[in-house]
Amino acid sequence: MTPMTKMPLLSAVLGMVATVAIGANHVDPAVTAAIKARQSHMQLLAFNLGTLGGMAQGKIEYDAEKAQVAASNLATLSSVDFSPYFVVGSSNADVSETRALPAMWEVPEGVLAALAQLQAATAGMADSAGGGLEGLQAAMSPLGGACGACHQAYRAPAN
Amino acid sequence: MTPMTKMPLLSAVLGMVATVAIGANHVDPAVTAAIKARQSHMQLLAFNLGTLGGMAQGKIEYDAEKAQVAASNLATLSSVDFSPYFVVGSSNADVSETRALPAMWEVPEGVLAALAQLQAATAGMADSAGGGLEGLQAAMSPLGGACGACHQAYRAPAN
Repeated sequence: MTPMTKMPLLSAVLGMVATVAIGANHVDPAVTAAIKARQSHMQLLAFNLGTLGGMAQGKIEYDAEKAQVAASNLATLSSVDFSPYFVVGSSNADVSETRALPAMWEVPEGVLAALAQLQAATAGMADSAGGGLEGLQAAMSPLGGACGACHQAYRAPAN
Repeated sequence: MTPMTKMPLLSAVLGMVATVAIGANHVDPAVTAAIKARQSHMQLLAFNLGTLGGMAQGKIEYDAEKAQVAASNLATLSSVDFSPYFVVGSSNADVSETRALPAMWEVPEGVLAALAQLQAATAGMADSAGGGLEGLQAAMSPLGGACGACHQAYRAPAN
């Protein structure tokens, strides 16, 4: 079997990326794909944070195993290299489909600091979430702070 | 500062999860959120695979650094615990928003084997992608095979 034999299997998956660009006239497909990817990534952070936040607020019953899975996944997702998501030309000054501010590209050291804050906060949550509700609640404060600080600096308010 | 002081910062993020459920009448919001999350995760796999597949096929110029980032991200994303995404009641026999077959829940050992195949293939890609185009192309075959095998077994064809 040559390395290319299974390429047709990829076409459906690659098609998903191409599909993203449909409906976004006049926008570079690479920009649209990057925006869609980073919004998908944020969706995954929110999904896991929803589990942990729900438990912290008493809206979801605390479950040590589920809390640990959500916290570990959050830490893993925060270790992804975000750079491919933020291609040049994909700020809210360039295209309408995003709330990412130009500051994201203008202040790279600030973005890296915000990312480090997120990674530290998710590592703290991963260390605590499975050990009891009080630890989970305590780890929520720096995690919420990391989310909020980055959004405040680099994301436009919702309309 | 109490652990709960920063909770308002979370509300916008948690709101993203709640928003997912809007428009999905009669479906458990937890089911809708899980489906949205796994589709977001697949989107991220496709995003990185799009970079690697594009390079393998000569549609994107090979760039060792970008290839390595995409491959490492793919491996990291494949190490996430997928179990929260597949809540009971979220197959295509239960709801219309998904192509996930009931077999996903009926054959857990098969799903775990498929996941192990994905993790092995993405690890292979992460070992190879940054070292030259030929290595990337060779690693694409088992990766495409892993994607295709899992989709064939556990995902309904597109309408």
